[in-house]
Amino acid sequence: VAERHFADRLFESAAKKNSVVCVGLDPRAEWLPASLGKPPESFVPFCAAIVAAVKSYVAAAKVQVAFFEEHGAPGWAAFEKVCGQARDAGLPVIADVKRGDISETAEAYARGLLDRMPVDALTVSPYLGADSVQPFLERCRRGKGMFVLAKTSNRSSSDFQDLEAGGLPLYLHVARKVRAWGKELLGESGYSAVGLVAGATHPQQAARLRAEAPDLPFLVPGYGAQGASAGDIAACFDRAGRGAIVNASRSIIFAYRGARAASKYKESEFARAAEDAARSMRDEIRAVLPGR
Amino acid sequence: VAERHFADRLFESAAKKNSVVCVGLDPRAEWLPASLGKPPESFVPFCAAIVAAVKSYVAAAKVQVAFFEEHGAPGWAAFEKVCGQARDAGLPVIADVKRGDISETAEAYARGLLDRMPVDALTVSPYLGADSVQPFLERCRRGKGMFVLAKTSNRSSSDFQDLEAGGLPLYLHVARKVRAWGKELLGESGYSAVGLVAGATHPQQAARLRAEAPDLPFLVPGYGAQGASAGDIAACFDRAGRGAIVNASRSIIFAYRGARAASKYKESEFARAAEDAARSMRDEIRAVLPGR
Repeated sequence: VAERHFADRLFESAAKKNSVVCVGLDPRAEWLPASLGKPPESFVPFCAAIVAAVKSYVAAAKVQVAFFEEHGAPGWAAFEKVCGQARDAGLPVIADVKRGDISETAEAYARGLLDRMPVDALTVSPYLGADSVQPFLERCRRGKGMFVLAKTSNRSSSDFQDLEAGGLPLYLHVARKVRAWGKELLGESGYSAVGLVAGATHPQQAARLRAEAPDLPFLVPGYGAQGASAGDIAACFDRAGRGAIVNASRSIIFAYRGARAASKYKESEFARAAEDAARSMRDEIRAVLPGR
Repeated sequence: VAERHFADRLFESAAKKNSVVCVGLDPRAEWLPASLGKPPESFVPFCAAIVAAVKSYVAAAKVQVAFFEEHGAPGWAAFEKVCGQARDAGLPVIADVKRGDISETAEAYARGLLDRMPVDALTVSPYLGADSVQPFLERCRRGKGMFVLAKTSNRSSSDFQDLEAGGLPLYLHVARKVRAWGKELLGESGYSAVGLVAGATHPQQAARLRAEAPDLPFLVPGYGAQGASAGDIAACFDRAGRGAIVNASRSIIFAYRGARAASKYKESEFARAAEDAARSMRDEIRAVLPGR
């Protein structure tokens, strides 16, 4: 069954919440309130409580599969439930999987993640090129979305992503190709169902990406715990304050553990801490965006 | 518990079997003999029969996680069992996962795949650079291995991997960095625990990779069903006929479905067909290798 265009759904959600925040559901076994039981089963009530607390302040949810996958089969069962809960709460769900493989294998990933799981979009590695993303593009024609890694938020992203070929860094070559792949997939919002990952920790590169690809939605990681602030991400947005969502994981979902918050929240108040953190982040970013 | 050096174990296995073949355990739900039951549970007896049939003719096994992952939690349970079976049969097991993520997420992948699963090595995407592989390198100091994607076997690998930066294509930049990462991890064989993926379908690029990185073990996909032949892979080996393993998946494990084989094997003879295919491939490659 075809769903509505992914970017339209994403930016409608952002408009409705008046928020460009994406909550990163990255549960760490060692940081969860002990009262919730054992991981990975405890991830389900933990994330349910977080989603219920933050859903009014966030546009979308990103779920990092690695923290589930490390627990094997029960981890995958929890991953499916957590994605479903976020979706049931009305949030577009991005599976942060960074998959990338040759075509028949990519087809298996697409079947598993986009056809079978309660997931709206995924993150994809570009390293294998066009044929490796075809199965995902096919699903983008039916309402799914994908974000291709261009410039990631980590320090070593410069190792390969900044290499210049023909005067253009690799991350901009990626942006060009992705733009060509996503050209046929523009929604009513003017944005494609295919987007880019542009780390908030590299504001200059993010600005170059935005100039290169004005019609690709950006997923912007690195806010909060990874060090980027509101001013760093302004360039990712268009003049209407649209075009990107900004992810924070730890700084929202583990806000109750934060250094400053230590005295402010009890462990049992983890959801309220997340709610406060999501609201603050929404307001911080809103203050620097045009058109808001 | 530390295991012996990965490359030493890998090349000892190759010497013992007098084979550089790696069998790719990529079970496809739609191609499995119906008598084995339903996927993904049927993957377990299917792969067990294949491993028992081919283990004398292959040096290692590579398990493609995507074909398991697409079945969710039961798929992961089957993945773990299939890896364990291959390992119990004495084969070094490479999890073909092509993961690549920022450091704490990479650490979760490393914990899940290398610490928790019965797996000896994994495939890794280089796109995120040095910090994204640190958790894997750490495990390589304790007997595990990894193969970083350099030049993949698919046609679109040229999209980014062949881009030239400073006169050097990206895949050679990757090889240089990986060589630096693996420098401290040389085994008694002279090869590092850290290797490269070099597609058999691109023999010229594979030869350049070998020249650039004489001490990195190569995992060479693309043989058989993907079109490469024995002559294409000779450049991946050293003068002793060592230094690489050559993967084939479909052409071994689904040999009983092959066009020519259609009249030769019954469905129930799938394991014998795989055995014949593995033996033939071993002999084909042996004929073109130096020192064998």
